[in-house]
Amino acid sequence: MQLSMALSMLDAALAEARRLNVNVCVSIVDTAAWPVVFARMDGAPLGVVDVSQKKARTAALFQMDSADFASKGHPNGEAYTLENTNGGLTSFGGGLVIKATDGSFLGAIGVSGAKTEDDIAIARVAMKQAVNN
Amino acid sequence: MQLSMALSMLDAALAEARRLNVNVCVSIVDTAAWPVVFARMDGAPLGVVDVSQKKARTAALFQMDSADFASKGHPNGEAYTLENTNGGLTSFGGGLVIKATDGSFLGAIGVSGAKTEDDIAIARVAMKQAVNN
Amino acid sequence: MQLSMALSMLDAALAEARRLNVNVCVSIVDTAAWPVVFARMDGAPLGVVDVSQKKARTAALFQMDSADFASKGHPNGEAYTLENTNGGLTSFGGGLVIKATDGSFLGAIGVSGAKTEDDIAIARVAMKQAVNN
Amino acid sequence: MQLSMALSMLDAALAEARRLNVNVCVSIVDTAAWPVVFARMDGAPLGVVDVSQKKARTAALFQMDSADFASKGHPNGEAYTLENTNGGLTSFGGGLVIKATDGSFLGAIGVSGAKTEDDIAIARVAMKQAVNN
Repeated sequence: MQLSMALSMLDAALAEARRLNVNVCVSIVDTAAWPVVFARMDGAPLGVVDVSQKKARTAALFQMDSADFASKGHPNGEAYTLENTNGGLTSFGGGLVIKATDGSFLGAIGVSGAKTEDDIAIARVAMKQAVNN
Repeated sequence: MQLSMALSMLDAALAEARRLNVNVCVSIVDTAAWPVVFARMDGAPLGVVDVSQKKARTAALFQMDSADFASKGHPNGEAYTLENTNGGLTSFGGGLVIKATDGSFLGAIGVSGAKTEDDIAIARVAMKQAVNN
Repeated sequence: MQLSMALSMLDAALAEARRLNVNVCVSIVDTAAWPVVFARMDGAPLGVVDVSQKKARTAALFQMDSADFASKGHPNGEAYTLENTNGGLTSFGGGLVIKATDGSFLGAIGVSGAKTEDDIAIARVAMKQAVNN
Repeated sequence: MQLSMALSMLDAALAEARRLNVNVCVSIVDTAAWPVVFARMDGAPLGVVDVSQKKARTAALFQMDSADFASKGHPNGEAYTLENTNGGLTSFGGGLVIKATDGSFLGAIGVSGAKTEDDIAIARVAMKQAVNN
């Protein structure tokens, strides 16, 4: 995950959030879950700083969107308490795995601050920049 | 738990994982839940590093396989929130208690990275090395 | 600290780092030490992610540049162990207090990854964007 | 850092420790400071488990041997408190950067449990396996 790609993704995410009239935090991490870029929009509640980071971290560590992770780490899922590993993970949508057009794993993005479906939508718009790069 | 036994168990676990064509992390701890040996196979997602360690830790701390622990530390179990003690424990399979042929407690092994049934199968293969020692 | 200003400061910092041919992390926090923007340049060692954040945090929490903080929080300083409060602070340069042209406190910036004097120089260039806003 | 290389390095380190008649822990991490292999020899004090891991982590995060790091993070060094970042780092020898023959960065090894010069010597012997791979 190069910084130039991460900044393009951030720009796209912020533009989409403004279009939807919501205030979010955006976190982008590399394949080892180390942060590359982060931004908090004016008006986003402070609690979503960490949520956006945990969404990205969850997606990177398990190479799985955080919404899919939710079905595993749930009390009735196949791996209850999985969400308590790795310093605490996030079992709801808004963390997406970033892949190149050839399918190779590049990192993950986490968006938080709006409704979960909007968080996911914003992350998906950002993802197009990864594919284009 | 001597290092020589732990390394034999690790070798057996890695061989079985290769045979099953899966990429896992293997953690072996002593009776005091202190790490003896750890290895991460190429391609294992990074999130399972901690999961394998927590599975071994759970099994050692309660001298109970993590799959059995799951029935206790669950919202519907007899000791809900037990899984939140000790820095976080793991309520699903893949953590096994290691015993000598005379039944004495030697430590625990945690395997993570494949499907839970494969994680358990790999740990069981490794266990035979403990018995043989 | 509005996101628009923080992004302008980030752009200026990255441009100056490229001009100096160094790879750094840049963290910008608000008056409450909450993160607004973060970026890691390609090639920056991973250890400086946290260093840049702690430099910004130190400057914001004490409204004092981290280089000035160093003379206090040092075994021979007037407040030895001050550096161990607040989850750990940073007693060397590269964390600068951000002020508006009227002197009001806006937040702080932390730069890490180059020699300390270059880290400081990069943060100072970014600071001009705050003044201009 | 592939597991096969890390296991070769571990074997070499354990053999050298036995030759020196000391009991150590050996940690090998990848370029992002994630663990690849760990082993604790019989008789090594439990406190050195974490020391060996922090030595490897320090070397990987700053791409600098932990002995060199010591001169920076010292109260009289250019970056006092640097050792308090990243969850605590290690400012003495025994953590070495692993490089391929072409100079590319592969990860780091940390050895702890013997005298510091022996820890370093053991890590250096292990390093030859990285070069040979």
